Amino acid sequence: MEFSFYFPIWNQLDDAQKKLLQQSAVFRQVRKGTVIHNGSENCTGLLLLGSGQLRAYILSDEGREITIYRLLAHDICLFSASCMMNSIQFEISVEAEKDTAFWIIPADIYKKLMLESAAVSNYTNEVMATRFSDVMWLMEQVLWKSFDKRLAEFLLEESNLEGSLVLKTTHEAIGNHLGNPREVVTRMLRYFQSEGMVRLARGTIEITDKGKLESLV
Amino acid sequence: MEFSFYFPIWNQLDDAQKKLLQQSAVFRQVRKGTVIHNGSENCTGLLLLGSGQLRAYILSDEGREITIYRLLAHDICLFSASCMMNSIQFEISVEAEKDTAFWIIPADIYKKLMLESAAVSNYTNEVMATRFSDVMWLMEQVLWKSFDKRLAEFLLEESNLEGSLVLKTTHEAIGNHLGNPREVVTRMLRYFQSEGMVRLARGTIEITDKGKLESLV
Repeated sequence: MEFSFYFPIWNQLDDAQKKLLQQSAVFRQVRKGTVIHNGSENCTGLLLLGSGQLRAYILSDEGREITIYRLLAHDICLFSASCMMNSIQFEISVEAEKDTAFWIIPADIYKKLMLESAAVSNYTNEVMATRFSDVMWLMEQVLWKSFDKRLAEFLLEESNLEGSLVLKTTHEAIGNHLGNPREVVTRMLRYFQSEGMVRLARGTIEITDKGKLESLV
Repeated sequence: MEFSFYFPIWNQLDDAQKKLLQQSAVFRQVRKGTVIHNGSENCTGLLLLGSGQLRAYILSDEGREITIYRLLAHDICLFSASCMMNSIQFEISVEAEKDTAFWIIPADIYKKLMLESAAVSNYTNEVMATRFSDVMWLMEQVLWKSFDKRLAEFLLEESNLEGSLVLKTTHEAIGNHLGNPREVVTRMLRYFQSEGMVRLARGTIEITDKGKLESLV
């Protein structure tokens, strides 16, 4: 895996910047389920994805979770390097949803590039605006949308990401994505099943009427 | 009012950039209650505050509102210029909460500065990270905090901003800040009154036991 192929604005860096980045970025591979960054711990660094899938989420004091965005190949995670900017006053955690290969870019190196290069800084602005848009979308969902719509949307999105109508997941994992307790997820899934939209089994949810599920959204 | 005094990184601009900004920024004064930017309309431009107070909020299809952040003197609003960045995929509205004096900076002018100056671009990153932190805080409130805590926090913050224990506001206005229907606000305020924390009258809410209100938060 070539770092230069995955780093989005490689061609806008000069030779010294390219060398610095390539020498300092650390390549890692983790198994599905690994927690790569934990909000309350130190500044891990920026994450650049080569392959796999990560999810960034926040945690309540009571241990409830909600997914705020997901990262795929070529995506970069800024907020695992919150020490990079004074104004980042919140903490996220990051977990691998699939076996994932990625680079960790040290926060101080990236910050140096940002301060000297308008191109890197503007790219960072675009990344932040993208995540901001994700979070604003999520906020609108949580505020104004009923849970049946959110759950239907989530199942359809998962099915899309996995390329399958059979989802291997638990009600608890779904609750952690959507910010709801497991019992609320189970109740709504049973309702979906009674309406013929899904079929529930141990560890799987099968979408049996995609059109009907879509009509909810 | 001198634009150069209010623009936060004036000293980091070169002479040509200073001239460009000063010539293109448009000074405006509006009365309390004026809607300066409406999410669904065109790109208004960046707003730089000289005096007064603005609130940025989002609207649901059904007309419900929630305040996402507030702006005071020297603050800058980026998202009233969402056309400036492709990745800003959400819309906010902005309203004056007090009589307010501000400058409108055209989006294309600011974008030009951002592309040529790492200083302007990094400043923009910090502004965005600040608003992002505001929104993440709000998200955590909405997700994990009960409404009595949020309302108590809001009343205390308002009292602080106004420098008074008597707040001139309506239950509907509070609902629009917090994203809840008016009836929910009224019910909770009546509960606060029965607990001796506030006294309700037409158009005002008086905080009568600040300590007890604080203990809720």
